[in-house]
Amino acid sequence: MAKSVLFLLSEGSEEMESTITIDVLRRAGLNVTVAGLQGAQPLLCSRNVVIKPDVALEDIKDKLAFDAIVLPGGNDGAHNFATSPLVQQLLKDYYNEKKLVAAICAAPTAIIAAGIHKNGKITSYPTLEEKFTDYQYQQDRVVVDGNVLTSRGPGTTFEFALSIVKYLVDIETTKKVAGGMVLTNDILATL
Amino acid sequence: MAKSVLFLLSEGSEEMESTITIDVLRRAGLNVTVAGLQGAQPLLCSRNVVIKPDVALEDIKDKLAFDAIVLPGGNDGAHNFATSPLVQQLLKDYYNEKKLVAAICAAPTAIIAAGIHKNGKITSYPTLEEKFTDYQYQQDRVVVDGNVLTSRGPGTTFEFALSIVKYLVDIETTKKVAGGMVLTNDILATL
Repeated sequence: MAKSVLFLLSEGSEEMESTITIDVLRRAGLNVTVAGLQGAQPLLCSRNVVIKPDVALEDIKDKLAFDAIVLPGGNDGAHNFATSPLVQQLLKDYYNEKKLVAAICAAPTAIIAAGIHKNGKITSYPTLEEKFTDYQYQQDRVVVDGNVLTSRGPGTTFEFALSIVKYLVDIETTKKVAGGMVLTNDILATL
Repeated sequence: MAKSVLFLLSEGSEEMESTITIDVLRRAGLNVTVAGLQGAQPLLCSRNVVIKPDVALEDIKDKLAFDAIVLPGGNDGAHNFATSPLVQQLLKDYYNEKKLVAAICAAPTAIIAAGIHKNGKITSYPTLEEKFTDYQYQQDRVVVDGNVLTSRGPGTTFEFALSIVKYLVDIETTKKVAGGMVLTNDILATL
């Protein structure tokens, strides 16, 4: 049975990071649920693209029934994740249950807020590096350390999503999905 | 005054190609209107991401008041563009008025259907090459020939969008927008 992913979408989330990740994971056969932090209505993303979540986060009965939780960036969206008691609790629970916690761009700041993965390896949008004083900050495009997978920005999202596929599925599926998308050679070389 | 872009979105459009293009053009300061072929309600894209257009295409009074028309791929979405009398007329009008016509992935097949740009240079999603018998088919990731700009798939969309920015705005803006997105070096090298 395919693994499942809880993808959080907020007002102010980065729409490229959201769409690329959701789409790539679905191409790999993962069951992705797009859960809206502010509800199931269409949400205004960071550059005014309006994306409708599949469901309101609060309406999901068993919020720990997924194999992974994934957070897109966007400054305002990430701020909402970092200040939502529900999201903060989910990050702690997924982390402590050794399920995958993945975040890109500004969203790793929600990992700081949750107080998890301290002293672990992590990355984020480059200008946010100074916030990660309690972590081993990396400048790699994707960082996988234990069950925490982080990445840097819109231009690293294909690598971020493919790394999640590699983590949750397998390298053959990752290469097959990558091969259908006309990616650049230097992205393909990282697989 | 910023130039304006009419971005067509259909049921079945490729959501990565749509979102990356809209987002990057807005980062460059272009005025992008996302026009829904089936109306202004949320539209189900190719991998079940639901995007709400800004407006219904049919409700735009002056449909030729933009500096460019841009079409995302996705097999079903592109088929809808190729079979819509309204979209076909718009493609002819934008082409004949020497405004930019840009299409990616499967969407260049809508250019074939419109009968425009014959014998011109063009590209598309790789597996569709055989359909372009009346064109000079190229295997480059982005092809600009006169006022027609085409590209190949999800993994070429950043280059596609940045090429539109370079065409409509300038290279300085293109480099500035690219620099903020943590793109791979081989994409940056093409600018």
